[in-house]
Amino acid sequence: MSIQQQLANLKNNRIFELFVVSVIIISALEIGAKTYDLPPIAATITYFLDLFITVFFLFEITVRFVTEPDKKRFFKSGWNIFDTLVVLVSLIPIQDSEMALLARLVRVFRVLRMVSIIPELRILINSLLRALPQLGYVVLLMFIIFYMYAAVGSFMFKEINSDLWGNIAISMLTLFRIMTFEDWTDVQYETMEVYPLSWIYYLTFIFFTAFAFLNMVIGIVVNVMEQEHNRANAEEAANEPTMAELKQELAEIKQLLQAQNKVKL
Amino acid sequence: MSIQQQLANLKNNRIFELFVVSVIIISALEIGAKTYDLPPIAATITYFLDLFITVFFLFEITVRFVTEPDKKRFFKSGWNIFDTLVVLVSLIPIQDSEMALLARLVRVFRVLRMVSIIPELRILINSLLRALPQLGYVVLLMFIIFYMYAAVGSFMFKEINSDLWGNIAISMLTLFRIMTFEDWTDVQYETMEVYPLSWIYYLTFIFFTAFAFLNMVIGIVVNVMEQEHNRANAEEAANEPTMAELKQELAEIKQLLQAQNKVKL
Amino acid sequence: MSIQQQLANLKNNRIFELFVVSVIIISALEIGAKTYDLPPIAATITYFLDLFITVFFLFEITVRFVTEPDKKRFFKSGWNIFDTLVVLVSLIPIQDSEMALLARLVRVFRVLRMVSIIPELRILINSLLRALPQLGYVVLLMFIIFYMYAAVGSFMFKEINSDLWGNIAISMLTLFRIMTFEDWTDVQYETMEVYPLSWIYYLTFIFFTAFAFLNMVIGIVVNVMEQEHNRANAEEAANEPTMAELKQELAEIKQLLQAQNKVKL
Amino acid sequence: MSIQQQLANLKNNRIFELFVVSVIIISALEIGAKTYDLPPIAATITYFLDLFITVFFLFEITVRFVTEPDKKRFFKSGWNIFDTLVVLVSLIPIQDSEMALLARLVRVFRVLRMVSIIPELRILINSLLRALPQLGYVVLLMFIIFYMYAAVGSFMFKEINSDLWGNIAISMLTLFRIMTFEDWTDVQYETMEVYPLSWIYYLTFIFFTAFAFLNMVIGIVVNVMEQEHNRANAEEAANEPTMAELKQELAEIKQLLQAQNKVKL
Repeated sequence: MSIQQQLANLKNNRIFELFVVSVIIISALEIGAKTYDLPPIAATITYFLDLFITVFFLFEITVRFVTEPDKKRFFKSGWNIFDTLVVLVSLIPIQDSEMALLARLVRVFRVLRMVSIIPELRILINSLLRALPQLGYVVLLMFIIFYMYAAVGSFMFKEINSDLWGNIAISMLTLFRIMTFEDWTDVQYETMEVYPLSWIYYLTFIFFTAFAFLNMVIGIVVNVMEQEHNRANAEEAANEPTMAELKQELAEIKQLLQAQNKVKL
Repeated sequence: MSIQQQLANLKNNRIFELFVVSVIIISALEIGAKTYDLPPIAATITYFLDLFITVFFLFEITVRFVTEPDKKRFFKSGWNIFDTLVVLVSLIPIQDSEMALLARLVRVFRVLRMVSIIPELRILINSLLRALPQLGYVVLLMFIIFYMYAAVGSFMFKEINSDLWGNIAISMLTLFRIMTFEDWTDVQYETMEVYPLSWIYYLTFIFFTAFAFLNMVIGIVVNVMEQEHNRANAEEAANEPTMAELKQELAEIKQLLQAQNKVKL
Repeated sequence: MSIQQQLANLKNNRIFELFVVSVIIISALEIGAKTYDLPPIAATITYFLDLFITVFFLFEITVRFVTEPDKKRFFKSGWNIFDTLVVLVSLIPIQDSEMALLARLVRVFRVLRMVSIIPELRILINSLLRALPQLGYVVLLMFIIFYMYAAVGSFMFKEINSDLWGNIAISMLTLFRIMTFEDWTDVQYETMEVYPLSWIYYLTFIFFTAFAFLNMVIGIVVNVMEQEHNRANAEEAANEPTMAELKQELAEIKQLLQAQNKVKL
Repeated sequence: MSIQQQLANLKNNRIFELFVVSVIIISALEIGAKTYDLPPIAATITYFLDLFITVFFLFEITVRFVTEPDKKRFFKSGWNIFDTLVVLVSLIPIQDSEMALLARLVRVFRVLRMVSIIPELRILINSLLRALPQLGYVVLLMFIIFYMYAAVGSFMFKEINSDLWGNIAISMLTLFRIMTFEDWTDVQYETMEVYPLSWIYYLTFIFFTAFAFLNMVIGIVVNVMEQEHNRANAEEAANEPTMAELKQELAEIKQLLQAQNKVKL
């Protein structure tokens, strides 16, 4: 038995699969544990644990790559590329204490390997991503609404409170805050002292964004239902004869009868 | 007439049923009354009322158990187990004043007996519980999002405010608060003073959780509708002939006609 | 022409209808105007305007009552009873300045006559009211959740802040506030200082009420859609033959053919 | 080749189209840039950029007008009127520094030309506008609820806090704030000190508006789904024979058979 076949056996082994999931969970728990103030001994343990996880993930991705018959297809899957990147980046040795934070942050992405290893979660994420482009135009519309209101807000309210309306970028952040209804009346009352009619600005903004958001939600719901409906119809069509088939049958029967009648007359 | 049959008659008596519901309502009112500052005389009344309710509930559950022909099936219903537990726990005598609070809390669960006694509420709860496992993977995905953001938040913002970002558990609570839009800009402005780009952290988190939540809601809606649709279809199928049956009929007619034609020729 | 017939003509006159709507709008504007600080002359105007509106409404309701052929049916419509009550109550003379506020409040209900006069709004309200009883059990379930959490909250947090948790009624108001996410973390942080695990109380409450609320919304949506679906099906059934009818036709044809075959053999 | 035909070629040229979109994006970026504090040189650049954009937009709208064969139809499209207005208004020369702000605000509307130039966004906006009139009565109902509660609030709470309840207009703004759950308990606690039962006012208001809003959302969802359903049915009807057609076929077959039977007997 070649090494490649041995690795393929290992990869499809249920115990190996469970072990991979366990290592991912342990790496997640380790990341969580690091957020607590740990005794010095724990630092040594997490250091070696980290080393082991890095080496194991490198081994696991190598096994998956070696056992893939078509090497090109391996890198066509976004999940494989993601896994490889996460493993490769955590291989970079970091001595610099400045970079220690960055190293920690990169390791957080290991938790996402949970998604790439559990097929149900992978399907969930894929379906979410597939829904996004259809909503692209609603997002663009919302961005235009935000951009215009932010420009107007910045022109008019800059002098009143430059922390909230200093430039178009800060204004957009303030508008996002208003959209979440987070202390939005504080912002409103402040500008209403100078421009008493500025409540029109806030109310129309809330109406437009709420309406656009509503439209987005309904868009998703209708879309999901349509897909379900089509799938159900497709299943039905496979099992049941169509009306068109029935009509064809009837036409044939009529022909037979008309032929009989001709024979008789 | 045996005692068991007498109890069965009692159990199915409408007046007895109404009396059980009344006692549950009284026990609920008593729990509410205890939250007010009551005169000493009320304490004596509630003590005897409590005793009566405990004894009555014990009696009622015994009646239900005795009249059940199959004793094993009695404990297969989650509602029966729940009722028995609530009754048994409130039987434990508590002299210790430390435990008085616990005793009160246990008695609150008696209100839930309202759900176990009204069939419509029981159906409602059962349908809610049945919807849960299907949503398990969305909940897991949301937990992963929370966990990763909490780890990043704890690594980066611990020094800024350890009350909000002290460790991964506190960070997850803070993130839940952000998800409910509760004073989330206060949290944001605090960290933006140190990391001006940290608004990216908050905005992406809100987008991801809102999207995952939306997905969950749509999942439930679609699921409920599908069940309704299937039920409606099943009913229709029982009453109406299917297309396949019609096609079978047509095929038979064609055979009859073809047989005629053969005879003639 | 009798007086009754003259009144019937008047009632069905489009100009009279428009005049009634105009008087309702004027009475609404008058109510709005009274909330401003008005010059003394305005008080005299509104006094006579009020007198005119009261007399006119009395006249209009009398016309509607007199022209109704079946006097019993008049009081079977909830809207007629509502209109009559609003008119009668505003007839009560109020000299007492203490009661002036009450008189003003009663006059606010005149705006609701807008709903009773516009058929589309009446249909809207009726459909809302019809949806309510179906949701009764969900509302009952939510009330049970509120009641239980309020009892627990009052038992445990009374000493911490009696303004929020003083008794079961105040606790339920606090819980409603928490359900709307209004400064709920302030309430939470306060109790977490004494009971560090009390976040479980808040999180489970938010989950349960959100879930029950979600269920309610889905209930309404599914219900509305089912009604639409049934209506659509009923329309279709009226126009199109059913599958059962088609099968009946086929059975008759087969009988005819079998009869032929018997004749021949 | 006439000038008109040359312009028509230019208008349908893909590079020209892309150039128009680019100019709109540049004009949007310029508006954003103006919200920052710019060096003096930038002021000169934006001045000439502004001039170029104004002239180019005037040129583009002229091309569209000249190449339109039916001049009347040009002004029947709301989008054409909107484009023309935006261009014409930005032509008005403004020296007065007082009017500079207004000039800036008018230029913000240029961003909306993005919507008028991208067909998908135009469709989106049109479908939003088409949904509005159907919701008109729900909006009217909500306005009546707001108006009545604002009147009551103003009558009762004016003395407590005239900033929030001073007159019916201010009260409606306060009620909108309460509907968005923004610090609504602060408003409530303030009035509860004088009228302990005023929580009834807030709770009923929240329930009524939430219910009306819910009704509105469901109205849109059901409406959108019905349209989808009708569209799907219409498509199906075009491809598939109806039950009525099948029945017609069967009736003809039966006639043929009955004719045969008559011949034989």
